[in-house]
Parts: sequence; structure tokens; C-alpha cells
Amino acid sequence: MPEATAPATRTPREPRNGVDTPTLIATLNAVKATPSLAKFRFRASNKWVSGTYSESRVESFSGAGGEHSHQTAFRYGADHPAVLVGEDRGPTPIEFLLHGLAACIAAGIGNIAAARGITLTSVESRVEGDIDLRGLLGLSDTVRNGYEGIRISFDIAGDAPAEKLRQIVEQSRARSAVFDVLTNGVPVEFSINTR
Amino acid sequence: MPEATAPATRTPREPRNGVDTPTLIATLNAVKATPSLAKFRFRASNKWVSGTYSESRVESFSGAGGEHSHQTAFRYGADHPAVLVGEDRGPTPIEFLLHGLAACIAAGIGNIAAARGITLTSVESRVEGDIDLRGLLGLSDTVRNGYEGIRISFDIAGDAPAEKLRQIVEQSRARSAVFDVLTNGVPVEFSINTR
Repeated sequence: MPEATAPATRTPREPRNGVDTPTLIATLNAVKATPSLAKFRFRASNKWVSGTYSESRVESFSGAGGEHSHQTAFRYGADHPAVLVGEDRGPTPIEFLLHGLAACIAAGIGNIAAARGITLTSVESRVEGDIDLRGLLGLSDTVRNGYEGIRISFDIAGDAPAEKLRQIVEQSRARSAVFDVLTNGVPVEFSINTR
Repeated sequence: MPEATAPATRTPREPRNGVDTPTLIATLNAVKATPSLAKFRFRASNKWVSGTYSESRVESFSGAGGEHSHQTAFRYGADHPAVLVGEDRGPTPIEFLLHGLAACIAAGIGNIAAARGITLTSVESRVEGDIDLRGLLGLSDTVRNGYEGIRISFDIAGDAPAEKLRQIVEQSRARSAVFDVLTNGVPVEFSINTR
């Protein structure tokens, strides 16, 4: 992202929590000045291997006016466990949603705490989702295919009063991309090519 | 999952596509006979490390009337890329949703094709999501935090006419847990503990 030329709108903060706070604030100001920089497109490609096992690559994305490669070509497998007639060569696909949710809010917590001048000592979460597989197995017309509900619980510690720490987590939730998608849903366009 | 005692409701199928089709059909019948076996709870735990980087563990789940450990304790990192002031030590959290979506439908395709007696030769997909970061950066009250839209495109090949192959993908989408969660949303309960 280009260097910000607009003046910072907050009291300058030092780097903290592993966050380059001045660059974070500069990035915010750059996007405020040039909103088109905020348009990102993330991508993955997936290849079915065998049974319920497939592998995805997460390699590149566009945003901030350009095309970017991740510094590593990330690869992930997903499978069903033996109890669901898979070989457990990866988590189930739906478990990755739990990772995404926890990680999204954790990232926001790091940034927000740094912007507020608070040093964190520990942030941990546990997340779980309940699902009745009669939906996806086609055994019920009333049970949904996906999670019926998700619960996530955060433990946070740092050099601020409990109420300030709580507000950081709340603010991260309020601005979380994954929390938004999971709670509100998103339109998914679907296409199929046969060869 | 217990051995099925109910008679199979479909013509018995041989293993195919790496799917143990007889066990898959038996599992369906077992759940039909004892619906409580269908209740699953998936879990992840996450630990913030530094900046926007955190790590999740996906280790155990409950379902089919018992508690289960994955055969591997799966661990995943997530981060922001440099252009978003992270260190790119993992994909962004929201990229994991794309992997989950593609992998969920791929797994279903493997199973459904096997149940229908169709041998697959190739299943690949590309998935992308558009996001305007002004939402999560707090720079707009009208732009949402998460993806505005996701597109997924499947290429499928196998020993069946194009229409049959297309129907397999459609059926997998229609029963996909991740597709349901992403398109329809799910209630997320949130709690915070300060230490």
C-alpha cells in the first residue's frame, strides 16, 4: 500500500504487540484518502484427491491497487474423519470456519490494542459449532445443513483495566470480516463446467 | 459410528473414488435408525502470538454418541499480508472460508458420485471473494465488514454424461454444510473473560 501522505488523525502510537502501529495508522489514512485501495479480492483453488479428501492452495490476492503473492504458497487439506467414512487426512471443511473466526478476531485485537496504546500479554479463544448431520446427510427436511450455532469465548489479559480489555474484544468483533460473513451470510455465485 | 443394522435403502455400491461406499450407506442407515448419532460438535482453540498472527489447533470433536480425536493435532496460522501491515505468516482468516467452501463441496462430490456409481477423474474449483476493507477499517458505515460476494466455479470430469456430472455438483452444493453457513449465516454467541 502506498505511503500515506495525509496527516494522522490519532495521537501517534509506537509499535506495540508486534504491530507496526505508525504504518497501521498511515495505511488507514491512505485508504481514507483513496478509497479504491480498499478493494480486495481473495482467492483459493481446490483439487479433489480421493474420497472426501481435497487440497486447496492460497497463493495470491489483489488489493491496494495491485496484485500480490503470499510469501508462501499456503496449502491445506480437508477430509472427513473415520466416523464419517473419511480418512481424517485433514480437519473437516467446516472446522476451518472456526479457525477463521477465532483468527480474525484475534488479529483485530492485536491491532486495536496497539492503536489504543495497550500492551497485551495473552489472548486465547475457544470456539465450537453444533451441527446435526441429518441435514447434510439428506435425512431431514427441517434440519439445516450447516452449524445450528457457534459459540466463541475469549480470554484476554494486558496492561489495562478489565473494561478496556473487554472493549478491545468487542470492537474487534464489531469490525470482524469473518464474524460478519458467518452471522449475516454472503451471496455465493456458483458455476459448473463439465469436461 | 456403530454398524448399521437397518437394511440398505439403495442398490449396494462398490467402493469407488476412494469412498468406502458400503460403509457410507451403512452409516446413513445407522443415523436414520438412531438420529441422535447425527449430533456433532466441532471445536478449535486459538492463541494470539503477535501482531495480526495467531495459531489455531483443531484436535477433537464429539459426535456419533462419543468423543473423538483427530489422528493428527492439526495446527493452522493466520496473519495479515504486508500490504495490510501483517507479516504474512499465514493466509488471512477470511481466506480460510474459501478453502472450507471449496473443500466441503469437493468432499460431497466424492461421496455422491460413489453412491451413484460414477467414477470421477478430476474435480477442481476456483473460489474468490470480494471485500471492500473500508468496512472493517471503520472508514465507512455503509460498507459491510465481510465479503460482498463469493464466486465458486467447479470443473468436473468422470465416466458419466455432462448432465449427470452437473447434477452431482448441484447435489453436493444443496447439501453442503459450509455453503449453508456462508449463504445463510449462523447465530454466533460471544463471551469475553478478562484476567
